[in-house]
Amino acid sequence: MRMVDLIEKKRDGKELTTEEIEFIINGYTDGSIPDYQVSALTMAIYYKGMTERERADLTMSMVKSGDQIDLSKIEGVKVDKHSTGGVGDTTTLVLGPLVAAVGVPVAKMSGRGLGHTGGTIDKLEAVSGFHVEIDNEEFIQLVNKNKVAIIGQSGNLTPADKKLYALRDVTATVDSIPLIASSIMSKKIAAGADAIVLDVKTGAGAFMKTLDDSRELAQAMVRIGNNVGRQTMAVISDMSQPLGYAIGNALEVKEAIDTLRGEGPEDLTELCLTLGSHMVYLAGKAGSHQEARELLETAIKDGSALESFRVFLSSQGGNASVVDDPAKMPQAKYTFELEAKEDGYVSEIIADEVGTAAMLLGAGRATKDSVIDLAVGLVLKKKIGDKVSKGDSLLTIYSNFEDVSAVKEKLYKSIKLSSNHVDAPVLVHEEITK
Amino acid sequence: MRMVDLIEKKRDGKELTTEEIEFIINGYTDGSIPDYQVSALTMAIYYKGMTERERADLTMSMVKSGDQIDLSKIEGVKVDKHSTGGVGDTTTLVLGPLVAAVGVPVAKMSGRGLGHTGGTIDKLEAVSGFHVEIDNEEFIQLVNKNKVAIIGQSGNLTPADKKLYALRDVTATVDSIPLIASSIMSKKIAAGADAIVLDVKTGAGAFMKTLDDSRELAQAMVRIGNNVGRQTMAVISDMSQPLGYAIGNALEVKEAIDTLRGEGPEDLTELCLTLGSHMVYLAGKAGSHQEARELLETAIKDGSALESFRVFLSSQGGNASVVDDPAKMPQAKYTFELEAKEDGYVSEIIADEVGTAAMLLGAGRATKDSVIDLAVGLVLKKKIGDKVSKGDSLLTIYSNFEDVSAVKEKLYKSIKLSSNHVDAPVLVHEEITK
Repeated sequence: MRMVDLIEKKRDGKELTTEEIEFIINGYTDGSIPDYQVSALTMAIYYKGMTERERADLTMSMVKSGDQIDLSKIEGVKVDKHSTGGVGDTTTLVLGPLVAAVGVPVAKMSGRGLGHTGGTIDKLEAVSGFHVEIDNEEFIQLVNKNKVAIIGQSGNLTPADKKLYALRDVTATVDSIPLIASSIMSKKIAAGADAIVLDVKTGAGAFMKTLDDSRELAQAMVRIGNNVGRQTMAVISDMSQPLGYAIGNALEVKEAIDTLRGEGPEDLTELCLTLGSHMVYLAGKAGSHQEARELLETAIKDGSALESFRVFLSSQGGNASVVDDPAKMPQAKYTFELEAKEDGYVSEIIADEVGTAAMLLGAGRATKDSVIDLAVGLVLKKKIGDKVSKGDSLLTIYSNFEDVSAVKEKLYKSIKLSSNHVDAPVLVHEEITK
Repeated sequence: MRMVDLIEKKRDGKELTTEEIEFIINGYTDGSIPDYQVSALTMAIYYKGMTERERADLTMSMVKSGDQIDLSKIEGVKVDKHSTGGVGDTTTLVLGPLVAAVGVPVAKMSGRGLGHTGGTIDKLEAVSGFHVEIDNEEFIQLVNKNKVAIIGQSGNLTPADKKLYALRDVTATVDSIPLIASSIMSKKIAAGADAIVLDVKTGAGAFMKTLDDSRELAQAMVRIGNNVGRQTMAVISDMSQPLGYAIGNALEVKEAIDTLRGEGPEDLTELCLTLGSHMVYLAGKAGSHQEARELLETAIKDGSALESFRVFLSSQGGNASVVDDPAKMPQAKYTFELEAKEDGYVSEIIADEVGTAAMLLGAGRATKDSVIDLAVGLVLKKKIGDKVSKGDSLLTIYSNFEDVSAVKEKLYKSIKLSSNHVDAPVLVHEEITK
């Protein structure tokens, strides 16, 4: 088999066989197939696409390119959740303790990553003492005992995907649905998921800006999952504005606590109940989505969701008393209100720009070496559709700098008011199961 | 400027600017832009093409990537001829002395190359003593004195093209008209041509199998040439069967001598007169193509073309008496006739296969290290449309092996007879000037 012939085959729009895809991924992983051939192939895939069968094969070849996490010692169906990213997305922090409270095992592997705020692990480090440096055995024991634990990324998971992603990033082949879908799914499967709930964001603040593109990506991932024997479904949720109110690390942990107590933002709560009920259903802990949802609502009402979070934090060294006193987490020195300059209705909150403003305050990493300020960030006071009067606070800025004039200027440009009534955006657009 | 942005621009079908193309070619030449980005770009070009302006810019960027031959000390308009390759193509051997005989300067840089037979230099080495190891000064003196000389490839010509071609070869992006056209044109221009006559082959034995593809390539090259200030035209000529009769090194030199004496194969003679008259016209040595053609016909009739060949050979150390006694060139030990097995008309001579048969005899190089047998090859006795009777010789095999059964078997499969009358193929399909 010669790589050049396989590139030509795909270039001409033909379907690669299972063996050919394995040859490519194995060769790329071991270095016998060079970057320059793979980048020509990915550009051909950009134009010619991949069939469902090719996508499933590519995913599994990437899974097999490295270590696979063995979660078989954890009782029950391990359901993982993946979000395609956005701004102020606190769902992971809420969902772990929430579904664990109704008996669904959550064995989460997470990272730090770049972006507007830190990754899930960074956020949780706002709780003093909390750490993810636990070994696999302890991790599995914790999940079996508490139903939820989190561990840092370890082992050599999907090295082919890592290499391929880095290559696509510099060769203008990131925006390819088959490649995006198989990249995401390979990571989830290698991390040991039996079933997967996907939260595909759509709108201005999401990677996928249109509903059509989001649906295409969601369907691609759901089909890969189901074709390789992992029950998978996707929710397409709104990211035309940030989710919830908080954008920042400690600020989002506080928002997660509020939500687990039943006092969180309406949209965040609703999305967590939607995603959570699918997780509970896929884990076989309820006979219907409605029943699953009721279990979760009860867990919030009776305090067991919040208790699950307490146990989770303290089991990994964290000071669980923050649940009752969030002010024990790092606090910003200064707060500033962004006051509306006129009366009107909020018509637009450009999520990307608001996220960048939070990053300017120090909430996120621009490069791998950036240090995150866990205390700082933004808390929205108004969301799209809300009526505001001149002088009302649109949001609060939490800062350790005294001068936030540049951040304010950016935010004023990112939040638009209209004199006419504006409808709040639909939160959950579609649920995709096949 | 970032390469990834330029790949994306081309990926999306947009036009790259002159500066962007220079950035790419300079960066690729000096190694600051890696293969894997260039291969993604060439795949995007494969699908999205290049505008006329982009092709001209790419050509000139590649010309400027290395040395350029300065032929300004040669008097007159330096017209170069380029053929896109085929089987048994003896035109270069004939055209050099032929147009030189009417005063057109031919300063030829040539190579050895891989293929069914050797390159022009290999063929000429069938003349004992002939050599191309002359320095630039002597080369220019020879052209000024005799109007024709040939030198081996020297200097660092179009290194960007060399790198790009090697990359395209292993990334399935060879078959791209803009990339083929700019590759060929960059080499001709760097070699110092003022004007260029292109012989674009079409048919089963050519790189371009259909007339449409050949026309597209011819137009692409003609427009590049004219857009960068080199008068350029193209002839689309038949390669559905080998050109002339001879396929081999000494055998083709003998055929060139025959043709210069006015006793060559009809198709080879006609094509040389067609290409040659364009060269003479572009060099300003005749006021019309008809006048140019008459000059060439006269040079053949009055012996000045043959004399030009004698002077050319002896000036570069060759034994010019071969012109009168071609048997002084290497001779094969054995000859065999390929006899027709039935009556009929020749309907097909698969040029590629016949060429491969010549290579099996040792006439060409399969790899850089192969040693060429200058004596061996094939001489066709019949061409498409010719009537044959059972037992007639279809061709003569010149071999230094006693057993040519495998070659014969291949040749029988390559030459097809029909019981019905077959027309001879058209030799010159089109002439393209813009």
